[in-house]
Amino acid sequence: MRQHKLALCKSHFLDWIPEQAERAIQKYRMFTRDERVLVAVSGGKDSLALWDVLLKLGYQADGLYIGLGIDGGIGYSDASHEKIRQFVAARPGISLEVVDVEQVYGASIPVAAENTQRGKGRPCSVCGLTKRHVMNRVARDGGYAALATGHNLDDEAAVLFGNTFNWQVGYLARQGPVLPASHEGLARKVKPFCRLYERETAAYALLAGIDYIYDECPYAVGATSIYHKEVLARLEEERPGAKLQFYLGFLRAREAGVFQTAQEEVALLTCPTCGQPTTVEGQCAFCRMWDQVQARIGMVATL
Amino acid sequence: MRQHKLALCKSHFLDWIPEQAERAIQKYRMFTRDERVLVAVSGGKDSLALWDVLLKLGYQADGLYIGLGIDGGIGYSDASHEKIRQFVAARPGISLEVVDVEQVYGASIPVAAENTQRGKGRPCSVCGLTKRHVMNRVARDGGYAALATGHNLDDEAAVLFGNTFNWQVGYLARQGPVLPASHEGLARKVKPFCRLYERETAAYALLAGIDYIYDECPYAVGATSIYHKEVLARLEEERPGAKLQFYLGFLRAREAGVFQTAQEEVALLTCPTCGQPTTVEGQCAFCRMWDQVQARIGMVATL
Repeated sequence: MRQHKLALCKSHFLDWIPEQAERAIQKYRMFTRDERVLVAVSGGKDSLALWDVLLKLGYQADGLYIGLGIDGGIGYSDASHEKIRQFVAARPGISLEVVDVEQVYGASIPVAAENTQRGKGRPCSVCGLTKRHVMNRVARDGGYAALATGHNLDDEAAVLFGNTFNWQVGYLARQGPVLPASHEGLARKVKPFCRLYERETAAYALLAGIDYIYDECPYAVGATSIYHKEVLARLEEERPGAKLQFYLGFLRAREAGVFQTAQEEVALLTCPTCGQPTTVEGQCAFCRMWDQVQARIGMVATL
Repeated sequence: MRQHKLALCKSHFLDWIPEQAERAIQKYRMFTRDERVLVAVSGGKDSLALWDVLLKLGYQADGLYIGLGIDGGIGYSDASHEKIRQFVAARPGISLEVVDVEQVYGASIPVAAENTQRGKGRPCSVCGLTKRHVMNRVARDGGYAALATGHNLDDEAAVLFGNTFNWQVGYLARQGPVLPASHEGLARKVKPFCRLYERETAAYALLAGIDYIYDECPYAVGATSIYHKEVLARLEEERPGAKLQFYLGFLRAREAGVFQTAQEEVALLTCPTCGQPTTVEGQCAFCRMWDQVQARIGMVATL
């Protein structure tokens, strides 16, 4: 780890990653050992490594897998689910909840995207909206205090770079290791790996013997975040630790209140259908979108 | 100009650049036609084009050239001065003040840098400190309301990128098209070209028949700002207008008060030797540095 001027052997590295996660959990007050944590697992290295680390650290961590029904010529969702099944099978007693989008809502993410305005071009917006809703719902219904995702430093720095370069001060005000619960009964969102480089979480998964899906989502190709990651990779190469400094410098500035003027007091309303928060009167964006999808699919089915 | 979706012929382009400068002067309230403006000219395209534009627009613009005594194997300072002489000779009645650093302070910038702690490695810090002092002094002694520099959008965006990437919120709070006078009698600092791309100022100089020095300062090689310019050039190539959006987005955020919490109230003191502002008790950094240089050079001369 050039940014820390640190080189570790396998056994020390396998201790070091959980220590780093523990530090982040404490420092940003993410959750305690008395609270239940829901880990959103995708089958990739970050989220499986996170679940593994939280279990090793003695946290009450259950898993949530959302089946998106994405094939992309590589059977992406099926392969992801299989990796998670293996992970669970190797750890008797741990608990995984599976929500299959097609079973629950009537269409896979790609099919839903084809049947809604929001899905024009690529299904990422439909997918993000659906995952957020499902994660919130499962966390609320299960009484979880926190919802943990495997976002690593490379993810966070790329989002930060985009928000900064476009001076999205509203987003900057809210970006951080912890997003407090915005609504009664919702879980706070936490990112215990936010200070770990992607290559560190990958090395951890490898050394800890965690098998994961190597492929990115087939729809991620050409995403802006991937472009920002390339820019940051060049900056990091020029100056080791640049990404970490960029992210930590931002957190310090945010802590010092730099973006507090941008933090608008948005009055959150409650969606009458699902009960989750929404900024608009009436149904939330998730419920409106899926109503539209189900109506269109129903129409096609009756033709 | 892809960022404006605009293509102009020579004669319209020669009108467009002064119009853009006039807009910036008005929008950011840089100076009026009743005020006298001192233009710092280096012999490069930006500062000579700026002086030309301000004269065409009917502003009371005088020039200031600071002879730095930099050779770098290409006679950099001599060649710069010669370009400025030609510019002045072609415009009877305009006024240029020349301050030769070696004549006034006893050593060229490179020699001064060799004889002071601050100059270790490269003379850029000594040069910046000296130029700032001389510009302030000449503007104050001449009763100028504003000191104009030729910084273009590429310069501003590169500095902004560095300050942002390192979250130098104190610097961010002060970066902008206008820096108000910090002290009784000092001129405000203004950058009328801050929204023009470097290629636009270069095209203007070329089309307006202004001969300028093409070389960068020989000490600029490897400067961080040049590295940041490369990063921004790639972002601009990917998305035309990216630099301008980055800079204007920042100005909007700054205008909205985002960085006001970072604007520390630094109590400015007055240097007992030169009368310019300083943040430390006693002599300012400029006077201390040159005292040291002159003492060392005097010692060498008496050996």
